[in-house]
Amino acid sequence: MDFRLIQTCPDGKARAGELITPHGSVPTPVFLPVGSQATVKTLTPGELKEIGIPIVLANTYHLYLRPGIGVIEKMGGLHKFMAWDRPILTDSGGYQIFSLAALRRVSDDGVLFRSHIDGSEHFITPELTVQLQEALGADIMMVLDECPAYDDSLEKVQMAMTRTHKWAERCQRAQKRSDQVLYAIVQGGVFPELRHQSAKYLTSLGFAGYAIGGLSIGEPKEITLAMIEETVTLLPETKPRYLMGVGAPEDIVEGVARGIDMFDSALPTRVARNGALFTWQGRYNIRNAVYSQMDGPFAPGCDCYTCRTFSAAYLHHLFSCDELLGYRLATIHNLNFIHNLMQKIRNAILDGSFSSFQDSFWASYQPTNEQTRLDQKRKWLKSRSSGQ
Amino acid sequence: MDFRLIQTCPDGKARAGELITPHGSVPTPVFLPVGSQATVKTLTPGELKEIGIPIVLANTYHLYLRPGIGVIEKMGGLHKFMAWDRPILTDSGGYQIFSLAALRRVSDDGVLFRSHIDGSEHFITPELTVQLQEALGADIMMVLDECPAYDDSLEKVQMAMTRTHKWAERCQRAQKRSDQVLYAIVQGGVFPELRHQSAKYLTSLGFAGYAIGGLSIGEPKEITLAMIEETVTLLPETKPRYLMGVGAPEDIVEGVARGIDMFDSALPTRVARNGALFTWQGRYNIRNAVYSQMDGPFAPGCDCYTCRTFSAAYLHHLFSCDELLGYRLATIHNLNFIHNLMQKIRNAILDGSFSSFQDSFWASYQPTNEQTRLDQKRKWLKSRSSGQ
Repeated sequence: MDFRLIQTCPDGKARAGELITPHGSVPTPVFLPVGSQATVKTLTPGELKEIGIPIVLANTYHLYLRPGIGVIEKMGGLHKFMAWDRPILTDSGGYQIFSLAALRRVSDDGVLFRSHIDGSEHFITPELTVQLQEALGADIMMVLDECPAYDDSLEKVQMAMTRTHKWAERCQRAQKRSDQVLYAIVQGGVFPELRHQSAKYLTSLGFAGYAIGGLSIGEPKEITLAMIEETVTLLPETKPRYLMGVGAPEDIVEGVARGIDMFDSALPTRVARNGALFTWQGRYNIRNAVYSQMDGPFAPGCDCYTCRTFSAAYLHHLFSCDELLGYRLATIHNLNFIHNLMQKIRNAILDGSFSSFQDSFWASYQPTNEQTRLDQKRKWLKSRSSGQ
Repeated sequence: MDFRLIQTCPDGKARAGELITPHGSVPTPVFLPVGSQATVKTLTPGELKEIGIPIVLANTYHLYLRPGIGVIEKMGGLHKFMAWDRPILTDSGGYQIFSLAALRRVSDDGVLFRSHIDGSEHFITPELTVQLQEALGADIMMVLDECPAYDDSLEKVQMAMTRTHKWAERCQRAQKRSDQVLYAIVQGGVFPELRHQSAKYLTSLGFAGYAIGGLSIGEPKEITLAMIEETVTLLPETKPRYLMGVGAPEDIVEGVARGIDMFDSALPTRVARNGALFTWQGRYNIRNAVYSQMDGPFAPGCDCYTCRTFSAAYLHHLFSCDELLGYRLATIHNLNFIHNLMQKIRNAILDGSFSSFQDSFWASYQPTNEQTRLDQKRKWLKSRSSGQ
C-alpha cells in the first residue's frame, strides 16, 4: 500500500491521508517544495527538516542536463546526492521541455528539444524518462506528458491528450523497479469533455496516483477550479490526487476543498527571493519602506526561524542590499508558512471543521489581485520560454 | 583589562592571548570574518557559531549608508540588529571611503565623499566616526585614518600619516562610552621611517590596541612583511596588534610569526563565492571538472558541515548551476578552514611548537602564485573604486 485515505470531510471533498514510501510516510494534503536542481533554492536539507517539510520535488529535465543522471546514479542516487533522506518526487521533464526548452519537435515516439542552457539537442521518450527516474531513485515518478498552452485549440489539446495517454501506457510498461510508484497525468486543457476522457482512460490503466496537469499555466482562476472539479469526480477515491504547479495559499485551500491531496510549485520560494512574504492577511513585500524601521518580526506570532530571530527592519535591510542571507530568510519564512497552512488544513479535516477553516482563511486572506497574478504568470512563462 | 597576553614563543614573536570584551572573550591570534552590511555574506549567526567564530567585523561606512546608523541604534544596536551576541569590531569607515567612495575631498577637518550607492554627499570627521561606532555599540572601535595608495609618494604618504595622527587624537577625545575600546591605526605606507614615526607617535597617546593599516593593498608581499616587522617592534607588548585586511592562510601564518594577534579580510568569504576553497595544500576551485564526479567530500578529513554532508560532485554541481546554496556551503568551508588554522596556530604557540607548525604548514601549503595574487588584488581594488 502506498496511500492510505484517513478521512474525507462530511460536508465536502477535502481529504486527509498519508503517502507511504520507502523513505517514510507523508501526511496529506501536502505541499512539495521544488528543488529543480537537487536543491530547494538557498536552503540546506537540515533547514527543510527544521521547518517540517516531509517531501520535495526535483526536476528530471534539469538534472538530466546538469549534472547528468549518470553522475547522480554513480553518486548513489538522488537522495544521497542532495543529502535528503525523506521522500522525493521527480517529474518526467515533460513540463520543462514544453516551457523551457527550445526547438521542440513532438512525435508519437517522443520529444526532440534543445537544452535551454547550451542549445544541445536531446530526444526524450516515455521509456527514457522512466529509466532516468529509476536511476535517480525517486519514491514517486511521473509519466511523460505533452503540455499544450492554455490558449491552444480543442483539436491541438485533444491531440496532445491522446499522445499523453499512449505515453502513459508506455511509461507503465517501461517501469522495472518495484520500490517506486508511477503517477499518471490527466491532460485535456480547459475542455471538460477532454478532461473526462483523460481521467477515464488513465484510471482504466491503473496507476498509483493521478496528477492533474496543464493547469495554472496562465488560464483564469475560475477555469482552473472548474477543471479540477471536472477531473476529480472521475478519479478513484483510494488513490492520491496531485494538482501540479499550484502553490499560492488561496489556491491550495481551494484545491483541497475540491479533493486534491498533493501540490507543488516554485511560487513560495520564487516570490520569497523577490521579497514577497506570506502572512494570514496576504502577501507583502519586505522591500516596502514600511518595514525599514520595524523593530518586531515581519509576521508577529510566526514561529519560523526568520521571525523568531530577526526584526522586519533587518530583513528589509538585507533585501535593500541584495544580501543572499535575505533570500534564505525569506524562503524559510514562506515554506514555514505553507507548511503551517498544510498542517492547519489537515487538522481541520481530521476534526471535521475544514469548511469553517476555509471560511476563516478567506475572511482574513487577501489574495494577489487576479489581473496582476495573471500578468505576472504570463510574463514569467514568457521569460522562461525565451531562455531567461 | 581588555587584553591578556598569555604566552610568547620562546624562539620568535608569535603570541597567544585573549581579548576581553563585554560580549565575551576572544582567544588570539584571531581572524575576524567580515560582515560589511551586518551580515557575513550568506551565513546566519548560528552557522558562524557552529563553526566557532568568536568575533566578527562590520563596516561603519556600509551601515552608515544603509540602513543608516540611526536605524540600527533604534533597533537596539548592532548586536541585536544582526542577532549576534558575541563581540563585534567596527572599522571607522576610512578604508572604504578611500577605496569605494567617489569624489573624496580630504581636509584636516575630515573627508567629504560621495556614496558609491546613490552618489549622495557625506562629510565624515573623526568625532563623527566615534559617535557612529558608539551608536552601533561595537566592542572594539577603530579611529578614522587616511589611507594612501600603495604607490603614492613619500610626501603624500607622510601628509596622510600626520593627518591620521591628528585624527587619532581627536577620536580619542571624542570617545564617551567606557564599555568600548578604541584602537589606533599605524600608517606610513611602505616607508620604514614613517612606520617608525607613526608607531611611536600613536603609542605615546595610549590606545587599547594598535592596528597596522595601509598594507595588503596591492604592494608586493615581501614589502608587506617587512613593514609588519618594522612596526611591530615599536608596539607595546601588552596591547593587541591587528593587521588589517589580511586573510590568506599563508599571510596569517607569517603575520602571527611576526607578532600579530588579529586579522580581518573579506578574502576567505569572497573567494568562496567564486568557488575557491582552502585546503592544507592550497586553494582549489570547486568549479574545476576534476570534481564533477568526486564521490567523497571536497577536502577529505575536513570537519566542516559542507564536507561532512555533501560530496565534492554535489558542490561542483551547485556552482555549475549558480545555486545560492553553493555559495553558502563554500563560505562555511572556508571560514571553518581559517578557524581551524587559528586554533592550530594558537595551540602550537601554547605548547611552544609554533615554528615547527610554521614549517609543516609551508611544507604542504602551495600559496596562490604571487603575480596572479597581485593581479587579482589590483583588479579587485580597481573594480571597487569604479563603483562595481
